[in-house]
Amino acid sequence: MPEERKPVIAVIGASKCSKKLRDKAALVGKYIAENGGVLVCGGTGGIMEGAARGAREAGGVTIGILPTDNKEDANEFIDHIIPTGFGEARNIMVVRSADAVVAFPGKYGTLSEMAFALLAGKPVVSISAWKLGDEITQVEDPIDAAELAMQLARKST
Amino acid sequence: MPEERKPVIAVIGASKCSKKLRDKAALVGKYIAENGGVLVCGGTGGIMEGAARGAREAGGVTIGILPTDNKEDANEFIDHIIPTGFGEARNIMVVRSADAVVAFPGKYGTLSEMAFALLAGKPVVSISAWKLGDEITQVEDPIDAAELAMQLARKST
Amino acid sequence: MPEERKPVIAVIGASKCSKKLRDKAALVGKYIAENGGVLVCGGTGGIMEGAARGAREAGGVTIGILPTDNKEDANEFIDHIIPTGFGEARNIMVVRSADAVVAFPGKYGTLSEMAFALLAGKPVVSISAWKLGDEITQVEDPIDAAELAMQLARKST
Amino acid sequence: MPEERKPVIAVIGASKCSKKLRDKAALVGKYIAENGGVLVCGGTGGIMEGAARGAREAGGVTIGILPTDNKEDANEFIDHIIPTGFGEARNIMVVRSADAVVAFPGKYGTLSEMAFALLAGKPVVSISAWKLGDEITQVEDPIDAAELAMQLARKST
Repeated sequence: MPEERKPVIAVIGASKCSKKLRDKAALVGKYIAENGGVLVCGGTGGIMEGAARGAREAGGVTIGILPTDNKEDANEFIDHIIPTGFGEARNIMVVRSADAVVAFPGKYGTLSEMAFALLAGKPVVSISAWKLGDEITQVEDPIDAAELAMQLARKST
Repeated sequence: MPEERKPVIAVIGASKCSKKLRDKAALVGKYIAENGGVLVCGGTGGIMEGAARGAREAGGVTIGILPTDNKEDANEFIDHIIPTGFGEARNIMVVRSADAVVAFPGKYGTLSEMAFALLAGKPVVSISAWKLGDEITQVEDPIDAAELAMQLARKST
Repeated sequence: MPEERKPVIAVIGASKCSKKLRDKAALVGKYIAENGGVLVCGGTGGIMEGAARGAREAGGVTIGILPTDNKEDANEFIDHIIPTGFGEARNIMVVRSADAVVAFPGKYGTLSEMAFALLAGKPVVSISAWKLGDEITQVEDPIDAAELAMQLARKST
Repeated sequence: MPEERKPVIAVIGASKCSKKLRDKAALVGKYIAENGGVLVCGGTGGIMEGAARGAREAGGVTIGILPTDNKEDANEFIDHIIPTGFGEARNIMVVRSADAVVAFPGKYGTLSEMAFALLAGKPVVSISAWKLGDEITQVEDPIDAAELAMQLARKST
């Protein structure tokens, strides 16, 4: 990516999840914000809300690309809301907007996002998400995952 | 599905593949057409072309939902061309248009289609495609796969 | 358009309208079907339902590209249902699928379809629809409009 | 709109235009930024580039929703790039992301954006753009247009 642009990291995963996972996502969001990155996500609940909260609380910028056409569906930690009205097809835009992706556990929506990320050649760091082959780096610790994603984003073209 | 509608089967897989796989896809298309089904696919080459050829030669109807906005990009065996201009996001429409899906080997585009099929609750029959869990039935023989897909389509809601 | 392909005509207009307008749309659909054309429309009510009924009753083929992701939202005269889930963005696909467009009165959804038709260089025949300049031919009689659309479709590239 | 959110103004119009029009668009972008608004646009040239330049130079935030899937296609004044890959269908997302719209002259792409804005119930202020009826306020001066758009955005729901 061009040096003058801030790295954009997508955090993806289930829209409903445990508090523990949401807090892990918040650590990822926090790291991104503290290290000069921008967070992009699907804008709704669960992992997305956790990541946005972490980034927001650390003073970062958050972008949410919604499935619906209604800004009110965004979680409260989103700065810039893109209400697409395209349903799950918005997943493809979430990963295209990013320079690297951190994937948390999720179901088929998350799987589609990982597929589109790989299709678009975006580096994917997985925290216990779908195992789809060697192109995805598995990392356990959320800070390590965020750090790696930021590194990969800076190297990406 | 309502009794008065014909079952619609999506055949998905790589847009470039061996002649052997294309011929297998043609057998699936042929079975669908001979048994009163409609074929829907992504409209371009490889598996999609094989399946459309098989269906067309057996007198069936074929629908192709293109990534581009140009009808000329459809293979020659497509009766009804939908040129979306939505790129790989058209994958979601291919599987939504179907009552059941037959998946051949493919890369991340195929993976995204399988993800969207599962997300939409469409039954998926796989011929050596991505292994994504128990919801997908693995079948080796193309005729068996087509037969099972037609059965599942007729039972679907 | 290539000689071996059937002309595809999009009929667009309000999803709610008077019986009189619906019957006019049916005449357009009937003409298209009787003269070897395929009808494509947005798949729901009003003008779209009228046109699909006319085409179906004359033995023609009808394609409906739905805003929702649910086949049950199609009117009963649609043969091939494409449930996009893309909301009003499906309008762009309706006109891209056509070789020419017949526009009936409608509100802003219809206006967006006419805009996209003109953007895509598709000929538009208007029966009292939005007046947008010289590129759109105004025709009063539905049969005349259908005839002109079929001629323009055959000449289109 | 909720009080705690910044008003988002979409500036739409031709992707190629005269320097004079581009400078007018810059005045609109400048006003938006100086008065606490966020600029959203289609991210490419002409009116969009002018508006983004004006907003950026006044210290504002700019969002560009691209037709392509390539961030490099954004103009240099865009802070947050959403590369959709959805072609002109991205127009619908530009206006949905806004609380009010300022429309400059443009061709059918601009017309489609105005249609979608009206369809979504977004207030539209027009500087010599398409005349589509009473719902659109015609304003000559760019500053007046920007001021009115900001007022309408703050009142919008």
